[in-house]
Amino acid sequence: MEPSAPRPDFVQSLERGLAVIRAFNAARPELTLTEVAAATGVTRAAARRFLLTLSELGYVRSDGRQFSLTPRVLELGYAYLSGLSLPAVAEPHLESLVAEVNESSSVSVLDGDDIVYVARVPTSRIMTVAISVGTRFPAYATSMGRVMLAGLPPEELDAYLAKVRLERLTARTVATAAALLTEINRARSQGWALVDQELEEGLRSVAAPIRDRTGRTVAALNISAAASRNSIESIRRSLVPPLVATAARIEADLPARRF
Amino acid sequence: MEPSAPRPDFVQSLERGLAVIRAFNAARPELTLTEVAAATGVTRAAARRFLLTLSELGYVRSDGRQFSLTPRVLELGYAYLSGLSLPAVAEPHLESLVAEVNESSSVSVLDGDDIVYVARVPTSRIMTVAISVGTRFPAYATSMGRVMLAGLPPEELDAYLAKVRLERLTARTVATAAALLTEINRARSQGWALVDQELEEGLRSVAAPIRDRTGRTVAALNISAAASRNSIESIRRSLVPPLVATAARIEADLPARRF
Repeated sequence: MEPSAPRPDFVQSLERGLAVIRAFNAARPELTLTEVAAATGVTRAAARRFLLTLSELGYVRSDGRQFSLTPRVLELGYAYLSGLSLPAVAEPHLESLVAEVNESSSVSVLDGDDIVYVARVPTSRIMTVAISVGTRFPAYATSMGRVMLAGLPPEELDAYLAKVRLERLTARTVATAAALLTEINRARSQGWALVDQELEEGLRSVAAPIRDRTGRTVAALNISAAASRNSIESIRRSLVPPLVATAARIEADLPARRF
Repeated sequence: MEPSAPRPDFVQSLERGLAVIRAFNAARPELTLTEVAAATGVTRAAARRFLLTLSELGYVRSDGRQFSLTPRVLELGYAYLSGLSLPAVAEPHLESLVAEVNESSSVSVLDGDDIVYVARVPTSRIMTVAISVGTRFPAYATSMGRVMLAGLPPEELDAYLAKVRLERLTARTVATAAALLTEINRARSQGWALVDQELEEGLRSVAAPIRDRTGRTVAALNISAAASRNSIESIRRSLVPPLVATAARIEADLPARRF
């Protein structure tokens, strides 16, 4: 919102309109005009124009005072998902895996420093935060993030480690870049990563990379499980083999072209 | 793109920027600048500004010639989904239902004349079109659409029937508004709707409404099944009872406030 210099090619009203969409979230599914203006840092007059435009386009509705998003907003994300064959390829395999192990399974991709879920088959909800397609978590604290970091070219991994800020999400979250690198190297050598309650207390997760035909890591597959019901040893013994086998089946089904 | 009169409160660059995002889809996951301009009806110079802005915001990436969307686009749809408690409430119930009947199940909401998927647990893919959260279909040709149309206030249903254009998606698609009204009334009286290959050859689907505490229909739950493996009689006997029971369990778990 505060460009360091005027950018003639930058369409600020597009940036601000997208910020209005993102102003709505789980904690604030309905917002007044004043709240939208405050959340996006624009004037009330500007917020009103964006909301009217989004209403006319069918992305926002209002009861006169409160505004909320409509399901049409999903078509924006759908433009991305429908262009990606990975979720469609992965879904039947996720379903089989979940039926076999009776724990939730997901596929995510790396986007900057975050993992982003692109497919998910849940069992019961064991996390306090609901996860759906589009949910983001910092890569360092997740098993899927670690196998994808392990697949980065060395210079990209170095750049990531040089700038990453490790937030203590739980008492167990990895605390230093050196310790994180050890775990990333372990993930690379063993072919999977196990994260023990570093993202959320009570949650263990194990992930394997999904690689394209050229060997590049393009996504990750995980199984997440309640720590109370799954020891680290039982995860290694019972969950890692079907996880790795399922990742291989997804890889085999991926089209040769980009996905 | 062609307003009948100048609209001072309408932010056209927001409309056009969103059109650039929607220009990407399954058939066209990568587009050149020229293709984006053609798809959105703007000049190459304007398309370039929108693409550069979306790149700077992290929604688009490019190899120099081809542009594609990034996973960050999902956060726009996620702003809607995370504000909706329905998917999170429904997902464990969908999972149980799919485990019980071994067929795919989904939840959708009505948005204008379309149903929009907001949660889905697939088994194997029996449709030629991949379905994910955000997928839209015309309400008249789907079982979920018919139970939601059955729940509309009479004046809204009349308005829908007066203007709906019934496209023959298959040889079996309902052909007249009168025949559609008969099916909607049947859905209302029996509490569920069965659609036999009207959306796609080989696909049968059955749906039940999901109502809020005031009795208003706010969503629909379905089970879809291959016609080759499921007679209409077996769907009535084996799928309708668990479907209706699952819809009731979702309703019981919905929070009292809006979702």
